[in-house]
Amino acid sequence: MLTDKKKAAQILLENDDFLILCHANPDGDTLGCGYGLCGILQKMGKRAKVLCADPVVSRMQYLKDSVVQQEFDEKTIVSVDVADTKLLGSLEELYADRILLAIDHHESRKEFAQYTFVDPDAAAACELIYEIALEMGAELDGRIASCLYTGIATDTGCFKFTNTTSRTHRIAGELMAYDFPHGEINYQLFDLKSKGRIELEQRILRDIEFAGDDRIAIVWLTLDIVNEFSDRVDTEDFNGLASLPRQIEGVVLGVTVKQKGENLFKVSMRSTEPINAAEVCGVFGGGGHARAAGCTIEGNLQFVRAKLLPVLEKAVEQI
Amino acid sequence: MLTDKKKAAQILLENDDFLILCHANPDGDTLGCGYGLCGILQKMGKRAKVLCADPVVSRMQYLKDSVVQQEFDEKTIVSVDVADTKLLGSLEELYADRILLAIDHHESRKEFAQYTFVDPDAAAACELIYEIALEMGAELDGRIASCLYTGIATDTGCFKFTNTTSRTHRIAGELMAYDFPHGEINYQLFDLKSKGRIELEQRILRDIEFAGDDRIAIVWLTLDIVNEFSDRVDTEDFNGLASLPRQIEGVVLGVTVKQKGENLFKVSMRSTEPINAAEVCGVFGGGGHARAAGCTIEGNLQFVRAKLLPVLEKAVEQI
Repeated sequence: MLTDKKKAAQILLENDDFLILCHANPDGDTLGCGYGLCGILQKMGKRAKVLCADPVVSRMQYLKDSVVQQEFDEKTIVSVDVADTKLLGSLEELYADRILLAIDHHESRKEFAQYTFVDPDAAAACELIYEIALEMGAELDGRIASCLYTGIATDTGCFKFTNTTSRTHRIAGELMAYDFPHGEINYQLFDLKSKGRIELEQRILRDIEFAGDDRIAIVWLTLDIVNEFSDRVDTEDFNGLASLPRQIEGVVLGVTVKQKGENLFKVSMRSTEPINAAEVCGVFGGGGHARAAGCTIEGNLQFVRAKLLPVLEKAVEQI
Repeated sequence: MLTDKKKAAQILLENDDFLILCHANPDGDTLGCGYGLCGILQKMGKRAKVLCADPVVSRMQYLKDSVVQQEFDEKTIVSVDVADTKLLGSLEELYADRILLAIDHHESRKEFAQYTFVDPDAAAACELIYEIALEMGAELDGRIASCLYTGIATDTGCFKFTNTTSRTHRIAGELMAYDFPHGEINYQLFDLKSKGRIELEQRILRDIEFAGDDRIAIVWLTLDIVNEFSDRVDTEDFNGLASLPRQIEGVVLGVTVKQKGENLFKVSMRSTEPINAAEVCGVFGGGGHARAAGCTIEGNLQFVRAKLLPVLEKAVEQI
């Protein structure tokens, strides 16, 4: 049942022994929500713990460290930033049908919880946790603020993306009134690069493919490259490359193709208005947002390239 | 005479025919202040124009385009984000002794105006223009908001740097309530790179020098490299490299050395706490902020390198 933030706050206030579920392959928003909400509930004298199917990357370890690890039998299950129980990964089986409250900001989602509070206008689900906390009359502190700030910063590319709103900045301003090392956090999240990542960027920029009068740039992350770098870079580094080709002047459609198997390629697209990346990926059965989308294509490299290029070229022809 | 924002607002309200002076080598903050304030005054029915010794870079042309160009004899001269009349460049001679009001946020500055409103707690001088506009009861619009937003975004690295405060986000939130293409602006300012810039980055990363157990990274922009790329990259691209070496994992002192002449080298440093870049540059007669500073060293490359390295190594030894 869809509900509002008032009811969401009431559910949190009236229950105890919380298990908070994050989505698998966790990002800053789901973890910021999870540990931020956990901190809020613990500070109110309730018991709360966070669970995620996958480990927290080292640069976000401070989120995990922001709360006390508590052991108890959960009575109330809440999911944060989860649009579909499939996204719970290995936790789906265990908890999918027992979720009391889902707090989320995804436009397209599958209902699964008894109560769902969803607001797609929020740039990050952490904005919603903050607003629910206000509604609950909860007291925040620097640790909780650092969690909620992290979710907002990561989901907006540090306030750079078009999803950033007046409300996003207003909430960030209220969170910054608490004491936490935002400069250090931003440096870890947005600037710091491993030497392996730098070498990887150098390597792929050297072999970048241009098409459609240089308005398309394609990065091919073949198995050879993935294997060459796998001991020096992590998944996050590989994923971070997706934004790279569109940053090149003149490029309106940036494409990163990562080979997942001999005959399996995962395509990530980033586009500039008016190119709709979700529509382009839709041709191959994929989808996503207008500016960022993805799809999977089966076949060998030559086949995938021959399939992909004409579709990309047609997309930029229209502008 | 030092004054407050109330008096600054009063001066702006009581005068007319404004000439607003920006500092030379203009950045987003001085231009955002200049064109933002110009727009505010014009919207109040006053005459106002902006002057800068150097041209506006193409990616900030929208700031210039945000106001109507007016021709008239100036009666009231205001400087924005100018810490010293020297920084007016070629405009110093003409206007230095006729400035009625200086609005600035630099901690260390030389007084020159009849009235000075300075607030070093502001991350950007544009925050001050916004607050003065409120004090004036001025009406804003999307164009004015885009100017003030630009100054705040550029001086804080899009809200990433430690100078960002709760006030910074609050003001950004209020500006975002007006309609302007913030996503496009941020893309132009922070993501977009020319092909020349990308090639330049590749080139300097290939030859980057590490020292002090890899805690120091030095980029040498020799005349050879500068000349090789000068037809493809602009000054802004060269300056943008300064933040690059410190982004490498483990590096706490990132140094970019740009050769300005056969025996003249300009050094830019970026540091991580607790390394004080201003102190390190101070050894060579330079200065700046704790996290970002600069100095100039005379001598040939071998001499400069021999002078610089021991000082850098000593700085990181302490931690």
